[in-house]
Amino acid sequence: MTIPPRLVTVAAAQMGPNQLADTRESILTRMLTLLNSAADQGARLVVFPELALTTFFPRHQIDDPIKKAEFFEPESHASPHAVVDSPRVRALFERARERKVDVHLGYAERWTDEKGETRDYNSALYYSGVEGRVVGKYRKVHLPGTVDPIPDKTGRGVDQQLEKRYFTPGDLGFQAFRAPGLAQQQGRGDPIVGMIICNDRRWAEAWRCYGLQGVEIVLDGYNTTAYARQYDGTPEEQEAEALFHHRLSCQSGSYTNACFSINVGKCGVEDGGALIAGSIIYDPDGHVVAESTSKGDELVVATIDLAKCRKGKERVFAFDRHRRTEHYKRLVEQTGVVEPPLLSA
Amino acid sequence: MTIPPRLVTVAAAQMGPNQLADTRESILTRMLTLLNSAADQGARLVVFPELALTTFFPRHQIDDPIKKAEFFEPESHASPHAVVDSPRVRALFERARERKVDVHLGYAERWTDEKGETRDYNSALYYSGVEGRVVGKYRKVHLPGTVDPIPDKTGRGVDQQLEKRYFTPGDLGFQAFRAPGLAQQQGRGDPIVGMIICNDRRWAEAWRCYGLQGVEIVLDGYNTTAYARQYDGTPEEQEAEALFHHRLSCQSGSYTNACFSINVGKCGVEDGGALIAGSIIYDPDGHVVAESTSKGDELVVATIDLAKCRKGKERVFAFDRHRRTEHYKRLVEQTGVVEPPLLSA
Repeated sequence: MTIPPRLVTVAAAQMGPNQLADTRESILTRMLTLLNSAADQGARLVVFPELALTTFFPRHQIDDPIKKAEFFEPESHASPHAVVDSPRVRALFERARERKVDVHLGYAERWTDEKGETRDYNSALYYSGVEGRVVGKYRKVHLPGTVDPIPDKTGRGVDQQLEKRYFTPGDLGFQAFRAPGLAQQQGRGDPIVGMIICNDRRWAEAWRCYGLQGVEIVLDGYNTTAYARQYDGTPEEQEAEALFHHRLSCQSGSYTNACFSINVGKCGVEDGGALIAGSIIYDPDGHVVAESTSKGDELVVATIDLAKCRKGKERVFAFDRHRRTEHYKRLVEQTGVVEPPLLSA
Repeated sequence: MTIPPRLVTVAAAQMGPNQLADTRESILTRMLTLLNSAADQGARLVVFPELALTTFFPRHQIDDPIKKAEFFEPESHASPHAVVDSPRVRALFERARERKVDVHLGYAERWTDEKGETRDYNSALYYSGVEGRVVGKYRKVHLPGTVDPIPDKTGRGVDQQLEKRYFTPGDLGFQAFRAPGLAQQQGRGDPIVGMIICNDRRWAEAWRCYGLQGVEIVLDGYNTTAYARQYDGTPEEQEAEALFHHRLSCQSGSYTNACFSINVGKCGVEDGGALIAGSIIYDPDGHVVAESTSKGDELVVATIDLAKCRKGKERVFAFDRHRRTEHYKRLVEQTGVVEPPLLSA
């Protein structure tokens, strides 16, 4: 039996470093160049990394509210997708509409609710260039790192991971959505898309929440320290280990949920802090479709066939036939570890 | 800071094929040889595969109740670990006590409850050779395959996976336990052990249920078809793909729960059905500690340091700081897939 194809041409828009000193205009110009080139190559979706508009500022401790606010896009109950019309970002979405390409953008969101209370999130949105509107929004759930800086043993002084200081954990859960008109073939169901951000990819819970919605493409932007302080060895060995864990997480999430994943990093030496590259597209068998070869701005373009998700979803990972939720209660009833009691001996 | 070591010498006892025509005595003799050799090499734990005592009979459809019963060990409410004293198995446990080694054994269990009702499980037990008793029992939760045979396209006629015909899904959940006196160093807490069987290793839920109990060693016996019918390509390519998915699953389960895993197969051509080998021990970073090199009876012995679990458990996978159970409800409230609605277009 041949399954009719559902083809989508996608582009992972890997970005080199955004230095603290870079102007927002210069960063946006690079993003427009990537978007144009992706559209020229026939891509219908361009996936930018986590916090694509700025440096990965959680490596710094910035407490001055004025300086800090510079990194955030204000949104609110009244204007929930204000970033689309923000003077310093909107050219990206105008271009997306012109070129009829969808855009995935990671950015820092400062949200003001109905009561006037403000919370900061590490967010991503999915913008349909064809329809000219946001069709999906995600706020990072698994914030890594610490609230307070860890004493710096590296001497580099820029090796912090302070996301727990800057951001509130996302409150939107893992809500998959359909990307209107994204597949070349219409009438076979619009692609089912889910978004995760960086550290989320290490958490099987996140992938499975999307898998349980039939996800076909997971979008994953990241900024991942290359010289990970928890690893031993030379900087090169540390970078290899960080890349190994990155790939392992994405590969296994894709395989066990029978979906494609588009994993896109900001990379290179950013403000003295090294970030891994390794932007990569996996297929539903966990195989590499395409990957980046540089540590700078680079497009990874591929045409993927969503029909390839069917085999896994209907056989090994046919959830309705194989999952036994009665034994999974611990997953939600318990946050941390509860060890078996020590033996009396 | 140096973490005091907690060393354990373990042996994965990979087994070559158990042919349908093999006597139970001949199979037990091979197992005793493996156990002795493991003990000679200083192992304190010997891990045998899934359904170690027989052929992987779910590749056959056997409906004759007499013939079928041959594959099962009867246990009951009155005698819950009867396999330990079964005339055709007990020599294994006697030897375990003599040599003071622990044994993990996969076997088919026919359980009779208080009401006299009988259910069949794909089971594993953990026997403490030092204490001379069973300290853990597990019944396979994720039964793969089908109830009825799939029309055979291979012409081999032995390529079925009928576990859903033979077995009831396990009812014991994923209960970790302490292995008394297993570590060389006493007084630092006995090792925390969990058991999964074969297809369970593809399910992140199983690993995480153990991770949430602080598991340090996951034991995983398997019988995995090498010429997987869902894969394309030559038999060699199919075997490579089956091994790839086996390794990916075990590697990612170990990494994301910061535990060792001892994955042990029955392998080779069994009753005309090829099984992958690839017995392998992973460390908490997802790296290979040791692996088998043959497709037959083979011991993979390694000394592992459980202190190496601490790094992952205290940092990247410090569950209490990072998990957000409020967003995981879908994992238990929903067995199968619920897709986002089709767009009106």
